[in-house]
Order: sequence, then C-alpha cells, then structure tokens
Amino acid sequence: MADASSPPTDQLAAATLDEVPKALFSDRVPIRSIVSRPDGGSALAGRKARVGGWVKTGRKADKDAFAFLELNDGSCAANLQVIVEASLGDLGQIVPTGTCVVVDGHLKLPPAGTKQKIELRADEVLHVGPVDPAKYPLPKMRLTLEFLRDFVHLRSRTNTISAVARIRNALAYATHTFFNREGFLYVHTPIITTSDCEGAGEMFQVTTLLSEAESLAKVEERSKLKPGIPKKDDGKVDYGKDFFARQAFLTVSGQLQVESYACALTSVYTFGPTFRAENSHTSRHLAEFWMVEPEIAFAELKDDMNCAEAYVKFMCQWLLDNCLDDMEFMADKFDKGCINRLKLVASTPFIRVTYTEAVEILEEAVKNGKKFENEVKWGIDLASEHERYLTEVKFQKPVIVYNYPKEIKAFYMRLNDDLKTVAAMDVLVPKVGELIGGSQREERYDVIQTRIKEMGLPLEPYEWYLDLRRYGTVKHAGFGLGFERMILFATGLENIRDVIPFPRYPGRADL
Amino acid sequence: MADASSPPTDQLAAATLDEVPKALFSDRVPIRSIVSRPDGGSALAGRKARVGGWVKTGRKADKDAFAFLELNDGSCAANLQVIVEASLGDLGQIVPTGTCVVVDGHLKLPPAGTKQKIELRADEVLHVGPVDPAKYPLPKMRLTLEFLRDFVHLRSRTNTISAVARIRNALAYATHTFFNREGFLYVHTPIITTSDCEGAGEMFQVTTLLSEAESLAKVEERSKLKPGIPKKDDGKVDYGKDFFARQAFLTVSGQLQVESYACALTSVYTFGPTFRAENSHTSRHLAEFWMVEPEIAFAELKDDMNCAEAYVKFMCQWLLDNCLDDMEFMADKFDKGCINRLKLVASTPFIRVTYTEAVEILEEAVKNGKKFENEVKWGIDLASEHERYLTEVKFQKPVIVYNYPKEIKAFYMRLNDDLKTVAAMDVLVPKVGELIGGSQREERYDVIQTRIKEMGLPLEPYEWYLDLRRYGTVKHAGFGLGFERMILFATGLENIRDVIPFPRYPGRADL
Repeated sequence: MADASSPPTDQLAAATLDEVPKALFSDRVPIRSIVSRPDGGSALAGRKARVGGWVKTGRKADKDAFAFLELNDGSCAANLQVIVEASLGDLGQIVPTGTCVVVDGHLKLPPAGTKQKIELRADEVLHVGPVDPAKYPLPKMRLTLEFLRDFVHLRSRTNTISAVARIRNALAYATHTFFNREGFLYVHTPIITTSDCEGAGEMFQVTTLLSEAESLAKVEERSKLKPGIPKKDDGKVDYGKDFFARQAFLTVSGQLQVESYACALTSVYTFGPTFRAENSHTSRHLAEFWMVEPEIAFAELKDDMNCAEAYVKFMCQWLLDNCLDDMEFMADKFDKGCINRLKLVASTPFIRVTYTEAVEILEEAVKNGKKFENEVKWGIDLASEHERYLTEVKFQKPVIVYNYPKEIKAFYMRLNDDLKTVAAMDVLVPKVGELIGGSQREERYDVIQTRIKEMGLPLEPYEWYLDLRRYGTVKHAGFGLGFERMILFATGLENIRDVIPFPRYPGRADL
Repeated sequence: MADASSPPTDQLAAATLDEVPKALFSDRVPIRSIVSRPDGGSALAGRKARVGGWVKTGRKADKDAFAFLELNDGSCAANLQVIVEASLGDLGQIVPTGTCVVVDGHLKLPPAGTKQKIELRADEVLHVGPVDPAKYPLPKMRLTLEFLRDFVHLRSRTNTISAVARIRNALAYATHTFFNREGFLYVHTPIITTSDCEGAGEMFQVTTLLSEAESLAKVEERSKLKPGIPKKDDGKVDYGKDFFARQAFLTVSGQLQVESYACALTSVYTFGPTFRAENSHTSRHLAEFWMVEPEIAFAELKDDMNCAEAYVKFMCQWLLDNCLDDMEFMADKFDKGCINRLKLVASTPFIRVTYTEAVEILEEAVKNGKKFENEVKWGIDLASEHERYLTEVKFQKPVIVYNYPKEIKAFYMRLNDDLKTVAAMDVLVPKVGELIGGSQREERYDVIQTRIKEMGLPLEPYEWYLDLRRYGTVKHAGFGLGFERMILFATGLENIRDVIPFPRYPGRADL
C-alpha cells in the first residue's frame, strides 16, 4: 500500500513549530497564508516554507549570482518574492515569466525600505516547469483583455483574470451563504428543457439526430440517406425519433420549474447556467451565462424587493470583507470608483419608485433639456439610457422600479388591481443599469389562464404550470439576477466576455 | 411609493415579545422555527404566529366544530398541527390533502399524551388555496416513487421527495463550504463545449441549424429547401453555418477545462451539470446529472486521495449534523442502515489498496467459492459486483483502489514508473460502489503527447491542453464525484431518477 496510504493530516496539527501551516492536500504553503496576514507575513520570519507558483517577473542580479522571482500561486493577488542562489539551479531557466517553480526555503525580512514585508530565501529548488519565452503567448507586458480572449486556457494566469476568478468565486459563495442563512433550499432546475419560458429569447436545440444521421451516412450510401434527418409526412423533422422523443432545448430560465418547488418547499433558489441563441455581438450578451433565481412562497412584491435588496447588499459587503485586495487591484487598473460603489450599495437603502413615477421623472428631465435617444412616455419599456439616468444621475444610488404596464411584461406576472399594471420590479444600479428583474407571480387560476390566452399563447404547454394554481395555490414572488452583470457591476470591467471563464458568443466556443 | 417602500426588516428585531421570529421576506413563521427547536416548540406556548403551508392530512372533529390540520411548509420534515374552529371558515374546503392554508393563531401546548410538543390554535384564516380531491393527482395515500415520476411538478409536495430536496440542498452547501474552507476557488466550466473529453461517452449536440431550417421552410416552398440543413460539397453538414461556426456539444466533464484554472490558481473545483447521450434505461444513469470536480496543483495521487476522503467524510458528518430528521425519515421508510452508514464513513479511515492487490483479493475470493459474473484477472476494468464485494463484503467500509492498468484508463492519467499502471484512483463505498473517480494528471509534455498518439487520438484538438504542459507545467491531480450517486448513497434510495428534481433520460424530459 506504499506511501499512498498515509491518511489525511489535520491542517494545523501537521505544522511543526518552525513551519508555516501547509495546505491540506499538498505539501506546499499557499502564498496567501504568508503575505495576506495582517502583518504582511513579517512575524513568520525565520520559518521554513515550501511554496509553489508561477513566475510573474524574474530577473538575475549580482552578476547572475541570484535570481529574484515574483511568485504567484493564485491564492491571492499578491506575489511572494523568492530569492534563488545560482548554486541551486539554472537561473536562466527559472526567471522567464510563466515558469512554474517549487522551492523549499526560509522566510526572512527583506532589506529595509522595500515594499514587501517578507520574502523567501530558497534552500532547494524542487521543480521547474520551464517556459520558452520566445513561444509563450503571454509574455510580461500589458496585454489587452481583447487579446487574452484568444487564450482562455492561459489567461487565468494574468493578474486581471485571476482577480476576476477570485471575485466570481466570492460572489458565488456569498450567494449560497446568503440563501442558506435565510432558509432557502438550492434546487437544480433542468438544463435540457421541453418547456419554452415564453418571451425570454431564442433557444438552442439539443439533439442527437444530426450526429446519428452523420454516422449512418458513413456506413451506407450517403445519397440514399439524404437528408439523414427523420421526417414526418408533412416534411417536418420527426422529433419523436430524437433522444427525448420530442423537441428539446437549453433552458433560458429556471423560473417556471423552480416555482413548482416553491409551491411545496416555500423558499427556494436556483443558480445555474442559462442560454440564449441570439446573434448578439455586444459587450453585455453571452450565449451561455449564469443566473441566480430565488422564489418565495407566501410572499408579495414588497417581500421580493426586500429580498433582492438584502441579497445585493450582502454580496457587496461580502466583497468588501473578503476580497478587498482584488477590489483594490480593480480600482487601481480599471475603475477607481468600484470600491466606493460597493460601499454605497451595501449601506444605502434602495430608492423605490413606481414605473409611473419613474416615467414622470424622465419626462421632467426631458422638459429640462435632457436628451434621450428613445422617446419617454407611459407604456414604453425603459431603455438602458433611462435606467442609468434614474440610478446614476437622478438618485445616484440603487433604484427599484415597480408596477410596470402589463403589455410589456410576461404573462406570469401578477395583475394589479388597476388592471393596467403588473407587480413586476427591476433593480437598477449605477454602472450596469438593470441588475435584477422580478415579480410577484399570478397565483389566481382564472386570471393567469386569461392572461395566457390574451397573449396568444397555447394553454397546453402550460397545463403543469396551471396545476400549481389549480391545487393549493399560494401567493409567491421571485427574481432573477444575471451573475455576470453582478461581476461587471463589482469590478467595473466593461465586457462580459472577461468575467466568465469560458465565454460563448456567436462564432466562438473555445475549449 | 405606497407600502412597497418599507425597507427590509431585521429578522429578530421585527419580532415582538409575544411573537415567534418571522421569516425575513414574508410575514409568516417557518414551521421549522417552531417544531425543530430542542424543546419541540413547547417553550413558545402562548405566543402568536402566522404560519402557511400545505395540508398533509386534515379531518373534521367534534361534529364538525373543528378541523385538525397537519400543516407542512417544506422547511422541515415535521408538520405543525393546526386547529381551526368552524366559525373561521368553510372546514370542508380546508381539510383536503394539498390545500394551501395561511392562518394567524396562538401556539399552545397540546393535551397530555399526544406526540407533538406544540400546536397552533387558529384565530383567523387568511388564505385558502383549495384542492378538488376528486381531481388532485396526489391524494393522501402511499404513492410509489415510480408513479410520482409522472408528476415532477407536484412530487416535491410528498414527504419523500421533499426530504430528498433538503438532503440534496445540504450536500450542495456542504460541498461549497468544504472547498471554500480549504481555499479552493469555484470555477464555472462551460456547458456548451467544442472539446471532446475523450472516452467519457456519447454527447448531445447543441445547434440552431434545425430550427433555422424549419422556420425557413415555413416561408418558402418546403420541397425547394429540402433538407434545409446546410451541407458541404461532400454531403456532410456544414457546421461553419451553425451558431458557434463549428460543431458544439453539451459537456461530459469540466475536468480538462478546470485543469487550465488549476494551472494558474492552484486549488479549484467545478460543480455543474454534465450530460451523456447514452441510451441507458437503468436506475443508475441519467442524461443530465451534476458532478463535483476538484483539481489541485502541486499535488500527487496521495493528496488527491486525501482530498477525496476528507470531502466524503465532511459531507457525511454534515448530514448527521444538519439533516438528522430527514435522515431518520429515510431510515424509517427506505433503508434502515443509512444513518449508520453515514456514521461509519464519517469516522473510519478509508482502506487503500492498489488495483493489483484488489485483483488478488478478488482472485482469493473466487478460489474460496465466491461466484462473479465477470471473470477476475489482472487487466480487467473492475465491474460493479467486484467493487461492491471489496467495499461491502471484504472490508465493510470505504475503499480506495489506485494504480490501474493504463490500458483501461484515459490518456491524461499519469504514467507510473512501472510503465504498466497509471496514477488513477476510485473511491468505492457500500451501497453504490464507485462514488468517485480521479487521477494524478500526466504533467510531462513528452509522455502525454505519446499517450495521446498511442490511443489513436489526433493531437490538434488537444493543443490547448498540451500548452498547459508546454508552459510552466506542474504536478496536479483531481477527481469527479457524481452528485446524484452521493445522494443515493446517503438516502438509500434505489433509483437515480428520484434524487434529481427533473430527471432526463431516453424518451423523457418533462418540463
């Protein structure tokens, strides 16, 4: 059973007095546990540590007697300076940007006047994963985010994309923490769906028909099998022969399905990938993106707004408490206001105005000379320019607009007593505009049936959804938050393709 | 701005002295916060509470002067008994199973000798969402799990499926908690992929070609457009015209992509949906299921095994600490050994044997009269019967088998110095057999290139993966845990279709 049989060791118990605590599943010490201490690591001077990471910048000094490496292992934004004597290895091989290095060494205080509080003097070089600087696609230089999109498998080695990865991770964990604390159950709604969440957008189809037709065509005469796709008598594709015996799609939202769980388990949420097959080439659209969708039974629109506000505040405070070094990097490089924006949102009550009030404010602005590209009048769907005026200019803080005209909203939103508006709400924030869209759902069987018909939709696909109103109906409400929008809001980055690890958009799905 | 403008209230501050703390985003009190207290709720006698839920069972008593309702809101397995006087409403409408009821009332001690520790006497009935018992698909009776699969939109109202939902939620939260504590970053690997994680199984195709062909065919003469799918000169489908300008699939694993993040951020994991287009109708296969895949840089196989063992133990202990009432329900109804199984796994070091040792153990068993359907000899892929013999009969505890013959494992697994085996490992547990599969990854550029060629695979699609070895290569290891398998293991349920909210399998993708 050899050495592989050693049982897992307790993280702290494993550390002897003169060592820094190791990572649990590795012999190395995360650089964060050295440099992210309140003292910057200085109290660790004299201790042994094994560290591993990738060279951010390296240089030889003292007539090639030493190499100075800025080593990063992704555990935090900061690097650890590592000093390697020439006797320990081929310094020329060690210094190129991107080289992987593992060393055993001693932590020591750096010379007075240097920026860092601690550095590592190597005793032994245990591993070198070399880089040919002539071929490495990410040399040490300021690379544009656009350039990096062609290297999604390597770009997480850059300061920006690794900071985004840590911020994204923190927001995901904050999401699960928030909803767990509030008693919400995480529900995995389906990715492959046969429901069409009407109006949400174009859908991708999921099929095995094409590949089956192609593999058939390999063995038999291709001309005989043209077109290969099974057809019905009317010439349409026979989806009865497809994998699910019907046409299947990638989900555009988990809302309708998660409602079925709310109507049994009361407080639930889904957090998963959603898809749009839209030919959008903008900096705000992806074909694959992640959404957070809570749904609450025994709740009305005001509860929904309270939940949305508390959730957004929680995420902002979480980043301030847990990711300040990465936020400082983003403030330094991309958006100097981003930390103050988080503080503002975390601490300020959101403004709440009805749609009607919002339109009046916009009309007043037009009267006072403000120019919008899109005309303002009661009944329009607010454009991004209108939303940003409300949150960035008029109120300069987050704004919730609620009670929208029923004509511009989906059938499942609850009809208000005025019969003109529905209990919908959007949360608008500075920098990105709409961050959240939600509503109280129509729980009255007769009303929702009428609304479906009014919208010219067939009833049959919604029979299961109507069942939720037919049997033990309950007031309920929910919302959706575009997770990448939240990251754009937090980081101040401009392009959504830079805040998801592997962006998918028309013509591109690398890896 | 009306009443919708009231700010969110602090959960506890909102409760007056004679009220039970409310849910934050609702006026009601979760039933769990009454009946799941250590005293069963008895200390709350005399306090006011608003509760909402669905009637599990209801009956009229005392010549229809009262109704007794067992009310459940999904916040816990237990119900709250609610007593409603006839003067408060139409009792005949309130008692049917499935009815939604919201009441204001006073908590009181029940008569001596009854099972529950607290009950609610209604003062007012605020809402009734009625059910026609003649039409309700889930009447009060023991319904089979198979029957319930035809009602995925309603089955979360049953005791079993709601317990599964709470256990599933707990395991998901335990997963994020474990990896967060250990410094792992959560990475969203892509769902739509153009990489083929070789050998993992048949893939679904993602396309917009079929629907485009169909919608074209609506407006133009269908015969002219047959087959509607764009073709290249050789008769093959022209995927250059598809949404991503190439053939795209649903992912079968996030491993290869998450490796790229491990080779920059060190400790990462992905937790997302994965897909197999296999025509499997067994109780252990789904077309859509969730996987947890950690990946650790600066780690070897023993670190990988340590991580897998610690993670599984953590989940088991989490369920014992956080879901004991639901586990007791599962023990009572389905698998009386399930709680002891969790305790065993949480507390016992896992056995670790090499594949070669495992085969010797199995051969010894055969020699002693044990009959297997599949022949045992060095070189075979262990069958489920072999795995379950090792974990259930021979060791009666979790077993990690490692160092498998290279011929039966994937190209990316690290070749051992014997040149015959690779540094792969499987975690086997009682009840389900293989729960986890993992390996140290081949980090040596020359070796992995040779292995890809040996397996008859083209190099080109793996160039990005080879880049991770070309530039700053690092030892790394990881594993995959089938999330639904873990739930089967925990609950003792037999069919994987009952442990995911919306199961997808050949011929079925409801909702």
